[in-house]
Amino acid sequence: MIFMCKPCTSGSNMVSITLLKFFILLALLQSLMVHGQPYQPNWQSIDSRPLPGWYDDAKFGIFMHWGVYSVPSYGSEWFWQYWASNVPSYVNFMKQNYRPDFTYADFAEQFQAELFNASRFAEIVEASGARYYVLTTKHHEGYTLWPSRYSWNWNAMDVGPKRDLVGEMATAIRKLTTKVHFGLYHSLFAWYHPLYLQDEANDFTTRLYPEQISTPMLHELVENYHPDIVWSDGFEKTTGPEYWNSTGFLAWLYNSSPVKDVVVVNDRWGEGTVCHHGGYYTCHDRYNPGTLQNHKWENAMTVDRGSWGYRRNVQLANYLSAEQLIASLAKTVSCGGNMLLNVGPTHDGRIIPIFEERLRQIGSWLKVNGEAIYGSCPWRAQNDTKSLDIWYTSQKNGTTVEAVYAIILAWPANNHIFLGAPMSTKMTTVAMVGVEPPLNWEAGPKGVGVNVTMPTLNPVQMPCQWAWVLKLLNIK
Amino acid sequence: MIFMCKPCTSGSNMVSITLLKFFILLALLQSLMVHGQPYQPNWQSIDSRPLPGWYDDAKFGIFMHWGVYSVPSYGSEWFWQYWASNVPSYVNFMKQNYRPDFTYADFAEQFQAELFNASRFAEIVEASGARYYVLTTKHHEGYTLWPSRYSWNWNAMDVGPKRDLVGEMATAIRKLTTKVHFGLYHSLFAWYHPLYLQDEANDFTTRLYPEQISTPMLHELVENYHPDIVWSDGFEKTTGPEYWNSTGFLAWLYNSSPVKDVVVVNDRWGEGTVCHHGGYYTCHDRYNPGTLQNHKWENAMTVDRGSWGYRRNVQLANYLSAEQLIASLAKTVSCGGNMLLNVGPTHDGRIIPIFEERLRQIGSWLKVNGEAIYGSCPWRAQNDTKSLDIWYTSQKNGTTVEAVYAIILAWPANNHIFLGAPMSTKMTTVAMVGVEPPLNWEAGPKGVGVNVTMPTLNPVQMPCQWAWVLKLLNIK
Amino acid sequence: MIFMCKPCTSGSNMVSITLLKFFILLALLQSLMVHGQPYQPNWQSIDSRPLPGWYDDAKFGIFMHWGVYSVPSYGSEWFWQYWASNVPSYVNFMKQNYRPDFTYADFAEQFQAELFNASRFAEIVEASGARYYVLTTKHHEGYTLWPSRYSWNWNAMDVGPKRDLVGEMATAIRKLTTKVHFGLYHSLFAWYHPLYLQDEANDFTTRLYPEQISTPMLHELVENYHPDIVWSDGFEKTTGPEYWNSTGFLAWLYNSSPVKDVVVVNDRWGEGTVCHHGGYYTCHDRYNPGTLQNHKWENAMTVDRGSWGYRRNVQLANYLSAEQLIASLAKTVSCGGNMLLNVGPTHDGRIIPIFEERLRQIGSWLKVNGEAIYGSCPWRAQNDTKSLDIWYTSQKNGTTVEAVYAIILAWPANNHIFLGAPMSTKMTTVAMVGVEPPLNWEAGPKGVGVNVTMPTLNPVQMPCQWAWVLKLLNIK
Amino acid sequence: MIFMCKPCTSGSNMVSITLLKFFILLALLQSLMVHGQPYQPNWQSIDSRPLPGWYDDAKFGIFMHWGVYSVPSYGSEWFWQYWASNVPSYVNFMKQNYRPDFTYADFAEQFQAELFNASRFAEIVEASGARYYVLTTKHHEGYTLWPSRYSWNWNAMDVGPKRDLVGEMATAIRKLTTKVHFGLYHSLFAWYHPLYLQDEANDFTTRLYPEQISTPMLHELVENYHPDIVWSDGFEKTTGPEYWNSTGFLAWLYNSSPVKDVVVVNDRWGEGTVCHHGGYYTCHDRYNPGTLQNHKWENAMTVDRGSWGYRRNVQLANYLSAEQLIASLAKTVSCGGNMLLNVGPTHDGRIIPIFEERLRQIGSWLKVNGEAIYGSCPWRAQNDTKSLDIWYTSQKNGTTVEAVYAIILAWPANNHIFLGAPMSTKMTTVAMVGVEPPLNWEAGPKGVGVNVTMPTLNPVQMPCQWAWVLKLLNIK
Repeated sequence: MIFMCKPCTSGSNMVSITLLKFFILLALLQSLMVHGQPYQPNWQSIDSRPLPGWYDDAKFGIFMHWGVYSVPSYGSEWFWQYWASNVPSYVNFMKQNYRPDFTYADFAEQFQAELFNASRFAEIVEASGARYYVLTTKHHEGYTLWPSRYSWNWNAMDVGPKRDLVGEMATAIRKLTTKVHFGLYHSLFAWYHPLYLQDEANDFTTRLYPEQISTPMLHELVENYHPDIVWSDGFEKTTGPEYWNSTGFLAWLYNSSPVKDVVVVNDRWGEGTVCHHGGYYTCHDRYNPGTLQNHKWENAMTVDRGSWGYRRNVQLANYLSAEQLIASLAKTVSCGGNMLLNVGPTHDGRIIPIFEERLRQIGSWLKVNGEAIYGSCPWRAQNDTKSLDIWYTSQKNGTTVEAVYAIILAWPANNHIFLGAPMSTKMTTVAMVGVEPPLNWEAGPKGVGVNVTMPTLNPVQMPCQWAWVLKLLNIK
Repeated sequence: MIFMCKPCTSGSNMVSITLLKFFILLALLQSLMVHGQPYQPNWQSIDSRPLPGWYDDAKFGIFMHWGVYSVPSYGSEWFWQYWASNVPSYVNFMKQNYRPDFTYADFAEQFQAELFNASRFAEIVEASGARYYVLTTKHHEGYTLWPSRYSWNWNAMDVGPKRDLVGEMATAIRKLTTKVHFGLYHSLFAWYHPLYLQDEANDFTTRLYPEQISTPMLHELVENYHPDIVWSDGFEKTTGPEYWNSTGFLAWLYNSSPVKDVVVVNDRWGEGTVCHHGGYYTCHDRYNPGTLQNHKWENAMTVDRGSWGYRRNVQLANYLSAEQLIASLAKTVSCGGNMLLNVGPTHDGRIIPIFEERLRQIGSWLKVNGEAIYGSCPWRAQNDTKSLDIWYTSQKNGTTVEAVYAIILAWPANNHIFLGAPMSTKMTTVAMVGVEPPLNWEAGPKGVGVNVTMPTLNPVQMPCQWAWVLKLLNIK
Repeated sequence: MIFMCKPCTSGSNMVSITLLKFFILLALLQSLMVHGQPYQPNWQSIDSRPLPGWYDDAKFGIFMHWGVYSVPSYGSEWFWQYWASNVPSYVNFMKQNYRPDFTYADFAEQFQAELFNASRFAEIVEASGARYYVLTTKHHEGYTLWPSRYSWNWNAMDVGPKRDLVGEMATAIRKLTTKVHFGLYHSLFAWYHPLYLQDEANDFTTRLYPEQISTPMLHELVENYHPDIVWSDGFEKTTGPEYWNSTGFLAWLYNSSPVKDVVVVNDRWGEGTVCHHGGYYTCHDRYNPGTLQNHKWENAMTVDRGSWGYRRNVQLANYLSAEQLIASLAKTVSCGGNMLLNVGPTHDGRIIPIFEERLRQIGSWLKVNGEAIYGSCPWRAQNDTKSLDIWYTSQKNGTTVEAVYAIILAWPANNHIFLGAPMSTKMTTVAMVGVEPPLNWEAGPKGVGVNVTMPTLNPVQMPCQWAWVLKLLNIK
Repeated sequence: MIFMCKPCTSGSNMVSITLLKFFILLALLQSLMVHGQPYQPNWQSIDSRPLPGWYDDAKFGIFMHWGVYSVPSYGSEWFWQYWASNVPSYVNFMKQNYRPDFTYADFAEQFQAELFNASRFAEIVEASGARYYVLTTKHHEGYTLWPSRYSWNWNAMDVGPKRDLVGEMATAIRKLTTKVHFGLYHSLFAWYHPLYLQDEANDFTTRLYPEQISTPMLHELVENYHPDIVWSDGFEKTTGPEYWNSTGFLAWLYNSSPVKDVVVVNDRWGEGTVCHHGGYYTCHDRYNPGTLQNHKWENAMTVDRGSWGYRRNVQLANYLSAEQLIASLAKTVSCGGNMLLNVGPTHDGRIIPIFEERLRQIGSWLKVNGEAIYGSCPWRAQNDTKSLDIWYTSQKNGTTVEAVYAIILAWPANNHIFLGAPMSTKMTTVAMVGVEPPLNWEAGPKGVGVNVTMPTLNPVQMPCQWAWVLKLLNIK
């Protein structure tokens, strides 16, 4: 993937790479003119595709993990795996609450989603300020939230809700707004699918599972729901992308699929691809490196620190606060990433109120401070070396930096904050986003840095909570 | 299939056919010597295989239809199909007893077989006098009673009982007795399997379902459970055997499978095969033609006239009486067939008492009269032309008829019965099986037929109930 | 109770008692003229009431035990008590099939009676030849099959079926036939009712339970359903009838209730009453003393030897055969008793087919031989001293014996049977009921007894199965 | 009830009443010396009891509505009543999610409280800053959360959780802290209890329900759990307190019960008592009159504006915010009331996270500002006439006002706030609770009122959120 769709990404630390990539692209374009199919099923070709610009602009997305694990809603969305592996808390939970021969598949009948209203989910997503949305269509348990012909009696139409949950969400999001892009998570493998286990027993010399299940499913998903994101997962325990024929699928996705021009993918396409191939990089869960990356990346994380799926046995302290979530967003965006924030719906089809409240809190913050986030570019500096609770972003026009934003995560006790990174000019102005009058500032020692006097604001005057944004114009 | 394994089958009406078949066999044997694989994947070759002798000797088997339909146990084992087709009684049953979005697959969790004891089933089968047993491993609903790798989360290990019901029955039967052969029913198709529906939508130009599901399942069944019978079904709505690759499977079964020497199959291998190709003929449910057939056949029938699966909404009058069942057995065996009598177990794993009682009643009758049934051959005549409630069988030694049996379904009111078919000799003796002294008899007019005086027996002296057997020795 | 309603009961062995009772009655009648209320709340008065004649004529009734125990339908209708007492098989059954904290009351939701059709039950009862029917309205579990205001949320309207099962049966029986009397079983106590336990803890010096629960319930039952029988139970673990105020209830029942003229009761009204006070005597379950009793009695028994409630874990051998049931009826009636035969319906509202078949078999026998049963009187002899499988009954006109019936339970192997009890005359005739010509007989040695030659009948001519009746006229 | 336990209540506006009550008390004390039982079963006597001082000091309690309605958790804790009354949304909910004959009592089996941990509930209650806790032991549905002997098979031990939920909470609260008083809610009546309905049909000329159910239950509760509060309810549809024998119960409670010295009750003891008799007054749900009352009162309210029981079909906007809750607390306490704030647990035994968060937010506010709430007295003024978002409280020593607190619900936009009620002196000081340096102030025009300059605080310096407290010393 060539990450050059936007000027903001041609920061100095990306130049040489970008030039290199430019020539590769050139070569590929030639190839395209010959063959008419721009992308070939190999990583060199696949990786050469420019990332569609909407994704980098979007910055913030909402993720939802939903499945049969939402029925026990205990411990984790890995419930099945942990139970089957005899993790004591899971074994005890089952012993205390179910008959001895109860199986994981027996849970599915209770997954009824009876209160599920896709429009309401969509409204909450929009209110959070998110610009994209990703739904788990199939997690490692293998259950599909859409009526897949490759998962008979183990999908949301055949057993449980009797509804196409993927289809309903797609429709609801698109009906409500064009601002929010609709994406689909798909786990390549399934812990206990017998064909997968058979391939595994054969050291992956056979490819029954990808041929009969995972590849057809991916095509089915793309053709039925036209996702703007294909969020692949399941690399942890599997073999390489050759087994999955990932490049084959991606070549089709980029060349011929109905979403070939807009679709974005991540990097989990088989062992060895994560953080190396595909679209943007996810590297690992809660990935938030704290430094600028030379490849577009995403921080996938959850409000509930301990689980992606909804779990009932949670402590309130496990939920990240609005403050923590906004800090995470600032750090992520500053370093060139997007943040994909997960909340797990319940088996009866609800987003629990505290999740809704967190999302609306972020939305209220973004309503004020969105200009520092949406469509922003990493700036020359990210984390201020002097004040660690400051993260920078910028808005560019072409290669010109038009504004620099310093996101202040902790209000300075003495109301004076020193921004170590910016070099001021005579024209420099500093203001707090959402606050009228410009702020007083002084150039730092030897003209390095800017000493800003924070505004005096009582609670009524405060533009927002949790974090504040200083906007600097006309700096060097 | 060449039906010539036993002398009894070379009755005069079979001679010419048998000779013809003999030459075909000869040709095939030549082919075998060349290729080392006696059977080719075409009907001519498959049909040429002689039927293993045990099957014709067995005469009487027990059939069991068991599956997810045993949960509603309402109406029929076709519950799903009728409900989905809006048959009013099924729709009403669901409306009155389940929440609106309940699906068929939702039933599976309640199929628990918690009282199932395979040894007890086996003991009842043996007590019935049956010499073979056939279990539905997968009916048209597609649910498999064994943990098939081709039916993930839609089999008895993954959802519901958490047990290998097929394996338990195989073990129990074989542990109890070598007299009862163990067979497996398998429906080729599945009403609602999406791959099957896809093939159907493609006018069967694709073969996704047989390639991925039905053929692998058949191999899995044979390799895991070594059945003596493969009782194929599902021809009603499907395309021809080419789609199923039935001859391919059968060639493997006959040439290379672990049961190649003993296995017996029926004739339901795709549209057009029934009553024409494969092993023995079943032609249609409750097939009992009443005349001698020149091909081995089977009368598959149920104690419950209206359903193969257990149903709760039955009238007592729908259950066949012991008298009716024995009459059916007599007629079937007399005409060269085997009777495969079905009882449907309950979802909790029981054979209901009245089914058990019926089976034990047949067993008690066979204990007395088994010599007229087991290993018997059709005789020259079947149904007596003069006394319609009489059916003949015989025992042969090579081509010599050693004994002729007249099974009397209705005791003559005046105690005199005229057997119109036998031609007596001076040496002729007539006796009732289970009764000591020989009976008085007279030759009929012009020496045709035998007039027998039935014995005078009070209830204590009666050898059996429901039907009585006269044994004739030394007749022409 | 004075048992003198019919001439047949004034057998010689009852004379002195009857005379004594006559004087008591006389005294009571005097008292009645004074007070206008014939019966006083003491046993002397209660016991003086003549038994309404219909009951002795009826001879045969059907009993049904139905309740929440029909949900587990495991072991016995005493499921709760055995489980709570840690009987291992019950504890294991629960462990293997339910979550650990499942309670007995939790079963009630599953008692749905969804297939229950009262008209069908009534038709089966009538077909059995029974002349009365008794339904358990409340067993020791305390759950009431009618919407009792004294058992809130523990009755069939509030939890489970949402139906008045008692009312539906009452209506169905009465609509179908006037031949079958409708009766109600009611257990005085309830194992675990806290008020009962409180009284017990107080050594029954308090009477909370009878005052608030059992007595109001009895009134409610009688007033709502007008039963012809009140079949009381629950004496086993309780204190005396004073606690229950049994005589108070019975005085009301006999004096003022809507069924005062027809109602019949049994003898289980508190410790010490059974076999001593009340209406007819039941003495103990399966009571069948084998000798003539000087007080009307009833043999309450079940088709399933091991349980009154329907249980799934039964062996076929535990069900009594038609032969055994008819033998029991003959012995019972011969000795002056009635037989009340129990079958337990299932939780979904069915009489299982084998129970239905047994009942219809008895009905078919009674259709032929009813004259030896209905309205019959005990004869001078009961069990023949020479032929133990013979039981006598008689029909009387006033005090004149019009016919004597010898019920033959085992057909004599040599077709000759010696009846040791009858003394023949010249006019004596002997015939088999249901068979045309009279039988040959000879007087026994010294004119004592009758030697009968049984008829020669083939199966077609047999009037019935299981037992045969000889009718003797004009004997001494 | 004489409301004079604390000096703070002898404010000038209560003097005359208090004097009157004093003489009444004197008379009663005389009566006591004669009879040895201070309280008689009449309102004059009952109302004369001084309210134990702990209750007025406590100010803030947590209420929990928990019961079978927590299973559907739909609409309201009045689910049963609304469904039975054919409110369309309830009828539809049942139609869409349950089989047709499902009853309310059928829900109880699913009330399992499997995740309930009483210690965790207690910890949350304590963290909220509450000083008392009230649990619904029995709501109008009649189901009891303790194993009442007067609610057989309709209580939490017999059906559902199989636990004594009341006992577990009592133990957990007491084990954790002595600061939080433990109280019990009890609904006198039950919508559908047949004995209650019978009394009602009799125009309450009979008293079956109070005699057999409600009065024994109240005694059982008090004797088993020693509650510091008996929170009676159920007055809405019933007859007067004579029917309930409320004064009889209260006389026992005050004279002889194990909690006679500490127990506090409310005013819902039958029609006509609410706001007139008993202990403190509740008047109506969400009662918050906004003016000083001359009788101790309580504002019982819920975080979920629309339901006391947990309901799933809620909008986030229906939950009161921390800001609204603290405003309500300020207004309540200022006017002499206590606030009892309800959160409804789920059927599986959890307090949902957003409820926990709200409670902890209030707790964090009280940690800073508790001195203005706990043990406070109403001041001369309540709501400031000039600044409507200000509510006053005070701390007294005897009759001397030691400090006045002005609770500021809305920070003044210009940082200047005018307190219209206080009259300053030269010694007057004004400070914000939780903030070090005293504030600048000026006397208002003509010495009336105080003009306070709010402190300049950045977010780090803010002592609290949502509301701020000014403490005034040495005012007139």
